[in-house]
Amino acid sequence: MIKEEIPKNRLVEFTQVLDVVESIVNQVRQNGDKAIIDLTKKFDSVELKDLSFSKDEIEQQASLLSDDLRRAVDVIYEQLKEFHLTLMPPEVGGGKSGVEFGIVWKPIETVGIYVPGGKQKYPSTLLMAGIPAKIAGVREIYFSTPQYDKLDPMMAYICQKLGIKQAYRIGGAQAIAAMAYGTESVHKVSKIVGPGNIYVQAAKYIVSREVGIDGIEGPTELVIIADDSADPRRVATDLLAQGEHGKSSLLVLISTSGRLISKVKELLSTDVNDFYIVEVKSVEEALKISDELSPEHLSLQVRSPRSTMKLVRNAGAITLGNTPPAMVDYGAGPDHILPTNGWSKFRGGITVLDFIKPISYTNLDNPTKELIDASIKIAKYEGFEIHGKSIGIRYE
Amino acid sequence: MIKEEIPKNRLVEFTQVLDVVESIVNQVRQNGDKAIIDLTKKFDSVELKDLSFSKDEIEQQASLLSDDLRRAVDVIYEQLKEFHLTLMPPEVGGGKSGVEFGIVWKPIETVGIYVPGGKQKYPSTLLMAGIPAKIAGVREIYFSTPQYDKLDPMMAYICQKLGIKQAYRIGGAQAIAAMAYGTESVHKVSKIVGPGNIYVQAAKYIVSREVGIDGIEGPTELVIIADDSADPRRVATDLLAQGEHGKSSLLVLISTSGRLISKVKELLSTDVNDFYIVEVKSVEEALKISDELSPEHLSLQVRSPRSTMKLVRNAGAITLGNTPPAMVDYGAGPDHILPTNGWSKFRGGITVLDFIKPISYTNLDNPTKELIDASIKIAKYEGFEIHGKSIGIRYE
Repeated sequence: MIKEEIPKNRLVEFTQVLDVVESIVNQVRQNGDKAIIDLTKKFDSVELKDLSFSKDEIEQQASLLSDDLRRAVDVIYEQLKEFHLTLMPPEVGGGKSGVEFGIVWKPIETVGIYVPGGKQKYPSTLLMAGIPAKIAGVREIYFSTPQYDKLDPMMAYICQKLGIKQAYRIGGAQAIAAMAYGTESVHKVSKIVGPGNIYVQAAKYIVSREVGIDGIEGPTELVIIADDSADPRRVATDLLAQGEHGKSSLLVLISTSGRLISKVKELLSTDVNDFYIVEVKSVEEALKISDELSPEHLSLQVRSPRSTMKLVRNAGAITLGNTPPAMVDYGAGPDHILPTNGWSKFRGGITVLDFIKPISYTNLDNPTKELIDASIKIAKYEGFEIHGKSIGIRYE
Repeated sequence: MIKEEIPKNRLVEFTQVLDVVESIVNQVRQNGDKAIIDLTKKFDSVELKDLSFSKDEIEQQASLLSDDLRRAVDVIYEQLKEFHLTLMPPEVGGGKSGVEFGIVWKPIETVGIYVPGGKQKYPSTLLMAGIPAKIAGVREIYFSTPQYDKLDPMMAYICQKLGIKQAYRIGGAQAIAAMAYGTESVHKVSKIVGPGNIYVQAAKYIVSREVGIDGIEGPTELVIIADDSADPRRVATDLLAQGEHGKSSLLVLISTSGRLISKVKELLSTDVNDFYIVEVKSVEEALKISDELSPEHLSLQVRSPRSTMKLVRNAGAITLGNTPPAMVDYGAGPDHILPTNGWSKFRGGITVLDFIKPISYTNLDNPTKELIDASIKIAKYEGFEIHGKSIGIRYE
C-alpha cells in the first residue's frame, strides 16, 4: 500500500516477549551449555552436539568459497577498513593551571558479535561488526550465528580474515545470554553487538545491566528526500531494495515534486511492502519530517545534497545525490549496523569508538594555588572534609 | 574492617527493586505530573506544587552564593571546560575506490541530567555532566534534583552558567521516567545522564529501551597501587576520603611493600568503611588484580607511574603518582561521572562523545568497477537482488 501518514511510534515492542526472554537468559545463565542444547531442541528441533565450530570445520567451509567471491570479500574488506581507520581517535592530552590531563584509548578486550539468519545468511554483517572491532584492537572477537549444521562458506572465510577467536552455532536469546555470562563452551565477553529479531534485542536489553551492547536494533528504515532533479526509476528501485529486508521495513519518500511522486508510484510494486509518500513545499520541510523520524538511512536525492546534509540533525547514514543507499549495506565504507526507531537522536552507527574506551589520566605537576583552593572549597561545600584534606596535605 | 579478599561481584543488584521501579515508571508515563506529585507525597511526604524551578527562583538562589564560592565555581568550570574541549573530535573524511566518505558529528538535541541528593548537595556533579554537554553543543539541557523547596545556591549559579533550559524539583525514578517520556511540566529528552541510588539506576535501565543513558552507576571505587616509594599518610587519607561517599564504597590498596601496608593500616579508621588490602610481589601482579576489578578510580602511587599507566587495561580515571584521586572528583579537569562495577571493561567516563553522535555520509563520485562488482556480488550472495539492481542501474 502507498500511504501518506508516516507511523509515529516505531519502538521495538519487545515488552510482550520480555518475560519469555528473561526466562531463557536465566536458564542459560544457570545451566550453561545444557540450557542452550535444550532450548535449541525446543525452539528449532535441532540436537546440537558441538556449540562451537572447530578450526577445521571453518577451514573446510572457507575452502568452498570461489576465488571470485573471495576476491569480492577482499575488496569490500579493504574498503570498510579504510573508512573505519579514519575514525580511530588520537590520544589527546593537554593541561591547565599546572595540571596535566588527557585520555588514553584502550580496546575492549573481549567482544561478541551476533549475526542473525537461519536460512538467510548475512556475511556482510559479520564484516560490518568485525572490521571496526579488529581495527580498534579487540584481542578476542567471538561470534555466534544460528547455523546449526555447517557455517556458510563466505562467513567462514570472513572468520579467518578477522581472526575470530571462536565461532558458535547458537541462535537467538540463548546466544546473547551465553556470551554475556559465559558457559562451559562459550567465552564470556564484555560487549555484545549486532542485529537480530525481537528475542535477540530483548536479550541484549536484559544483559545490558552487566555487559555493553551497541543498542537495540529494529527493522530497517529509509527516508529519501527528493526534488524534481531526482530520477524516479532510481528512487523507486532504492525504496524497493530497502523493502527486500521484509514487510516491517519503513520506506519513506518525501518530495517537493508532485511529478516525481506520480512517476515513482507507478514504478512501485506494493504486494509486499507499504510505502509512505509525502509531498512537501520545500526541502526544509522535508528535513523537519525526516529529523523527527530520525531515520536509519537518509538519501538526499536533491540538487544540492552537500548543503542539505549540513542541515540534517538526526540520521544514521546519509547518502548524497546519486549514491545508492544499498551501497552502504555493502561496500561503500560506512557501517550498516545503524540506529533505528529514532535512536539516531542519541547515537550513531557502529564505529571503532564502540570498541575502545577512553581512560582519563591526571597528573598534578605543579597545580596553581587558585585551583587547589577552589577544589577544596567545593569539596567542603559538599561536606566532603577528607576529600579536601587529601588534597590539602599535598599542597598546603 | 580491614580485609584481604576483594569482593568479586559488585553488580548493582537492582533486580529486587525492578518491579517497584517499573510500576513507578509506568505511572509517570501514564499519568504525568499527577503521578509525580502523588509519588513524591507517598515516598517523601512532600506536597509538590511546582515541578520546575522558575527563572526567578534560580536567580534569587544564585544571588545567595558568596563571591568567594562563585569564583571557586568559575575556576573549576574553566578547568573542566579545557579538559573536555581537548576531546571534541574533528569531522573526518576520506575516500577509496572512487567513493568519498566521512563522519559529521551532530549534538544530541535534548539531554536530561539527574543529580541525586536530598540533604546532601552535589553541585560538582552538575558541572561534570553539564560542561561536556554544553561543549558538545546540546541545545536544550534539562536538569532534575530532589530539592523540593529551594535550589541549592551553588547549583542555581551553575544552572545559570550552563544555560540550563529548565530545572526540576523531582527525585528518584520519577525524575528519570519524567525526562524519558515527558509530562505536562517536564520536557522529554533523548538522553539521560547522571548518578543516583538503585531506584534511579533501575529506572535508567528501564527507560534505556527508548532513550539513551550514560550507564548504570553504582557506589564509588578506588584502587591504589603503591610501592615502597609511596607516602603512607597520603595513601591512607586517599582511602578515607573515598570512603566519605558511604559504607558501600570499594576501597582497595594493592602494594608491593609490607612496610607501607603496616603504616597505612595504623592510619585507617575502620568504624565506617571496610578496606581491602592486598600485598603482592610486583606492580605487574597488582595491575592484574586491578584490571580484573576494573576500578572507577585507579591511583598509581609508584616510582614510575607513567610506564605503569601504559600497562593498565581497565579503569575509569587514573591519577599519577602524588596526584590525589580526590582532585578528579573536583577540579583537575577529567570527569567524575565514571564507570563502576567493572563497566570500565567496556566504557569510559563521561566525555563530549556522550553528547554527540557520528552520522556517516557516502558519496559515490566515480566508483571503481571492482568495488561496484564486489558489492553486487555480495548482495546477490545474500539474496538481495534488488539491492544489487539499485546499484547496477547507476553504474552498469
